[in-house]
Amino acid sequence: MEGFELHKKNCLEKADKSSIGGVDSRIKELCEQINSDESYFTTSSCSGRVVLRKEPVGAKKNEIEWPFVSHDLVEFDDLKSKLVTLPEEDVWFVMEAPILHICCRSLEDAQKMLDVFRNEGFKRSGITGVKSKIMVEIIGTEHMDALVAKNSELVVSEDYLKLLVEEANKKLKKSWDKSEKVKNKIK
Amino acid sequence: MEGFELHKKNCLEKADKSSIGGVDSRIKELCEQINSDESYFTTSSCSGRVVLRKEPVGAKKNEIEWPFVSHDLVEFDDLKSKLVTLPEEDVWFVMEAPILHICCRSLEDAQKMLDVFRNEGFKRSGITGVKSKIMVEIIGTEHMDALVAKNSELVVSEDYLKLLVEEANKKLKKSWDKSEKVKNKIK
Repeated sequence: MEGFELHKKNCLEKADKSSIGGVDSRIKELCEQINSDESYFTTSSCSGRVVLRKEPVGAKKNEIEWPFVSHDLVEFDDLKSKLVTLPEEDVWFVMEAPILHICCRSLEDAQKMLDVFRNEGFKRSGITGVKSKIMVEIIGTEHMDALVAKNSELVVSEDYLKLLVEEANKKLKKSWDKSEKVKNKIK
Repeated sequence: MEGFELHKKNCLEKADKSSIGGVDSRIKELCEQINSDESYFTTSSCSGRVVLRKEPVGAKKNEIEWPFVSHDLVEFDDLKSKLVTLPEEDVWFVMEAPILHICCRSLEDAQKMLDVFRNEGFKRSGITGVKSKIMVEIIGTEHMDALVAKNSELVVSEDYLKLLVEEANKKLKKSWDKSEKVKNKIK
């Protein structure tokens, strides 16, 4: 077994270390399709999500907390229930685009995969490493970041929160549609 | 003159086609520094900006309008004056991270430049093309996208708009600081 194949085998056999304890179901098929090609394997993936991000001012990445995380369409009441007791820190309502990391056998393979995703609107994508491993990072363009609480108080109305949920759900659906299109392209 | 040098010369001599009619002053020195290295040249750049984005639901890129654009810290009254007469379309308040496109002589040069920017927090960066031209796209992580008007009405309070301006200005400053750090690294 040559270097890339062995690396792929080892990586895919490793226990899943993601916070949700497995590949997020909405992107699973796409990952499996990529992994079925001998020139690629995925090392991490997220189909897009809506979160509440609690961050002390000037926080480092490891100081950030997520009191709410949803990979599905958001129900307003679920979100609202996480905004009853508010922390001193800033709380942001965030919609994050899908993200995928793909290890590629060759630079040519990387460019090919990149072109497929970029053509379907995953414009925040690029090759992030070309040294020992050739890595492609795929990121969609959908996102939202709105401040919702500060100093233990909501800074937006309930109606506005409902609007944010509505808009975020639209963006989630758009992201899923785009991922579906890529899946059909790389069949 | 070999291929890359000739291409660099032609590109840098071309008339500026950006909407602001020149290289945005806050990123000019960084671009000049990159261009002074024979292995690189910049093809476009933005130091980060705060905009109002007017978009019909499901709009294509060419249907989007920007009634307000600022590359400097935003004064609340300037922004507010653009929100007096409101369109039917959705209006978003957006802070966009710095973005740079850099053409590189070799793949090794591309990886080197990428590493410098990524290490200083420009995490949304990657090599976007490795065929005829080797292009690196640099994007920072600071951003905000909050809906502020819908169906010709504001959906946020004036106090909330002030908060958005405050947060966006913080993010602009953070972006400028990061760009400054990169400038010192590639001296």
